[in-house]
Amino acid sequence: MTKTKIDVTLSKTKKEKPQSDQLEFGRVFTDHMFVMDYSPTKGWHDARIVPYEPISLSPASMVFHYGQTVFEGLKAYRTQDDKVLLFRPEKNMHRLNLSNERLCIPQIDGEFVIEALKQLVSIEKEWIPTAEGTSLYIRPFIIPTEYFLGVAPSNFYRFMIILSPVGSYYKEGIHPVKIFVENHYVRAVDGGTGKAKTGANYASSLKAQEEAAKKGYSQVLWLDGVEKKYIEEVGSMNIFFKISGEVVTPELNGSILEGVTRNSIIELLKSWDIPVSERKISMEEVYETYKKGKLEEVFGTGTAAVISPVGEFLYNEQKMVINDGLTGELSKKLYDTLSGIQRGTMQDPFNWVVDVN
Amino acid sequence: MTKTKIDVTLSKTKKEKPQSDQLEFGRVFTDHMFVMDYSPTKGWHDARIVPYEPISLSPASMVFHYGQTVFEGLKAYRTQDDKVLLFRPEKNMHRLNLSNERLCIPQIDGEFVIEALKQLVSIEKEWIPTAEGTSLYIRPFIIPTEYFLGVAPSNFYRFMIILSPVGSYYKEGIHPVKIFVENHYVRAVDGGTGKAKTGANYASSLKAQEEAAKKGYSQVLWLDGVEKKYIEEVGSMNIFFKISGEVVTPELNGSILEGVTRNSIIELLKSWDIPVSERKISMEEVYETYKKGKLEEVFGTGTAAVISPVGEFLYNEQKMVINDGLTGELSKKLYDTLSGIQRGTMQDPFNWVVDVN
Ligand SMILES: Cc1ncc(COP(=O)(O)O)c(C=O)c1O
Ligand SMILES: Cc1ncc(COP(=O)(O)O)c(C=O)c1O
Repeated sequence: MTKTKIDVTLSKTKKEKPQSDQLEFGRVFTDHMFVMDYSPTKGWHDARIVPYEPISLSPASMVFHYGQTVFEGLKAYRTQDDKVLLFRPEKNMHRLNLSNERLCIPQIDGEFVIEALKQLVSIEKEWIPTAEGTSLYIRPFIIPTEYFLGVAPSNFYRFMIILSPVGSYYKEGIHPVKIFVENHYVRAVDGGTGKAKTGANYASSLKAQEEAAKKGYSQVLWLDGVEKKYIEEVGSMNIFFKISGEVVTPELNGSILEGVTRNSIIELLKSWDIPVSERKISMEEVYETYKKGKLEEVFGTGTAAVISPVGEFLYNEQKMVINDGLTGELSKKLYDTLSGIQRGTMQDPFNWVVDVN
Repeated sequence: MTKTKIDVTLSKTKKEKPQSDQLEFGRVFTDHMFVMDYSPTKGWHDARIVPYEPISLSPASMVFHYGQTVFEGLKAYRTQDDKVLLFRPEKNMHRLNLSNERLCIPQIDGEFVIEALKQLVSIEKEWIPTAEGTSLYIRPFIIPTEYFLGVAPSNFYRFMIILSPVGSYYKEGIHPVKIFVENHYVRAVDGGTGKAKTGANYASSLKAQEEAAKKGYSQVLWLDGVEKKYIEEVGSMNIFFKISGEVVTPELNGSILEGVTRNSIIELLKSWDIPVSERKISMEEVYETYKKGKLEEVFGTGTAAVISPVGEFLYNEQKMVINDGLTGELSKKLYDTLSGIQRGTMQDPFNWVVDVN
């Protein structure tokens, strides 16, 4: 890929920005977006920042038929001294290329895209909300654009980045969530696409989530697709268990997403000398430790909510109330520290934060 | 859903039709398409036949992110006496609603859609090629259209039918195909979306197909996602084995597609008093019968190619050449009979064929 100049066309009109206290998640988009196209002869080309506008595609465009899509999610934060910070964007670019690999989509140049992203976010600086819990959500994604009804990788693609000022992902905020342990539906299996951030994994999760919601649970916990025994992850979070002082999270087994937050939490815990292990862990084991009173905290990790304490599981019709349904001490400390680093209010000993200027 | 009138807007210009002998699969589309929209308050509404034209969608439209899509595939044939025939379209509508159910998409009224399809196909009659092996491929599909970056079923959808005059799906025509038995990648698993015709299943298959192609195999044979032992199906075909005079095909286990051709072949075989069973069958069993010289024929079934004889498997580095790599007698008879019924050149004792007028 050539490091071409990025063409910028500014929007003639500016949309009204939402009030900080009325922000939802992923409903409102900024004035501009980044776009580049791929063709077999030119590779990725025509990198450009243009006004946010509809995409026009033939009904035969492969994106409408065969699900060959990948995406990423990260955030930009605006500090009190008006700096704009990104959190470990190189991790998202790395993961995007892993997803591309699995979905037969050509690799992107992560460094170049981060430069483009910085430029885009700078242009949209005024869109970044500053209130506690708010940020600018960044959605890079790639779609196949060839017009062809046949099961084969597309020859043409479009890469885009769109931006959305957001409040908290969960309406409940940092309050503990209730999670249903799924024992019928499967999200991903070894040899499938679980490790990739591709539409497929989310499409297949909708049904389980709908059924869990009917029972009063806002998310589902996925078990492995083979034995329906080992814990994988939650809808859009990785999951951690604090058992007798040790923190355990499922290992990267090829069918769960390698969360950037997951990795950061592990690093943080290590730096605090809190024992943490990545290993296979069954729901039965978690249930046993729970019955013995040794399950101290459970929390999910993800870009959207950073840390989501889990207040309750429903597992085989059994309610498991964790830490009296309250946010645990460690969960709170991790949330405060990680979001402090992300927002530039706390020191960043890991060099995770990238200043956009 | 109300059986509203279908609004028709005819195209002012007509595209040039491709030569019968230059038809590819799924590259050229006719002048019109059928469209209807869904909203929570109106249900499916605004049913219309309009000129074939691009779709314009916000970059935040859910279809670009979370893969909540379903589709169907069937064909229209034009007979020598200029009738237009559809083959068991009610089966496709039934399956579309099964897919909808799994993907949390609202049900469609199959009868109404078949009426719409008949009207659309009548308008495009001149587009239906008549040469041997050619037909008009029909692609109904549904995409989510809500603008929202959150993992949840869309509240808005668009249903479309587009039409493409096609030649043979496989460039090889009715010649036997070579198939790679996949023992690493997995297409679908119990509790997943295997039974639904949704983009996810096809996206996850691309990588395996690409690797098989490099080895000189045009398709992959999928094994079950749990034990990687039991046979499921091929990329876009169900599969049948003729072993010592008996025909065996994997049972409908929830992770394979319920092919319309599969069902029709079973009916045909039964009507001919050829023993046929739907059951679990492992690749090991097939290999054993092969070594004993009892594997007489193998063929895939699907709308695109009707019958694809399998001339060779590559299984754990072992080449298995079936029936000397030639089209088997039964495969040929099934192909001739089923395509004869579909094209109106043979009697249709099952009442499968629907006259568009
Ligand atoms: C399935 C899934 N698991 C885990 C995560 C957490 O990853 P990250 O921490 O990079 O946001 C996400 C999403 O963001 C996800 O979609
Ligand atoms: C995965 C898969 N299996 C089987 C089939 C065969 O189904 P049918 O006979 O209805 O075309 C298809 C496609 O058409 C398919 O995509």
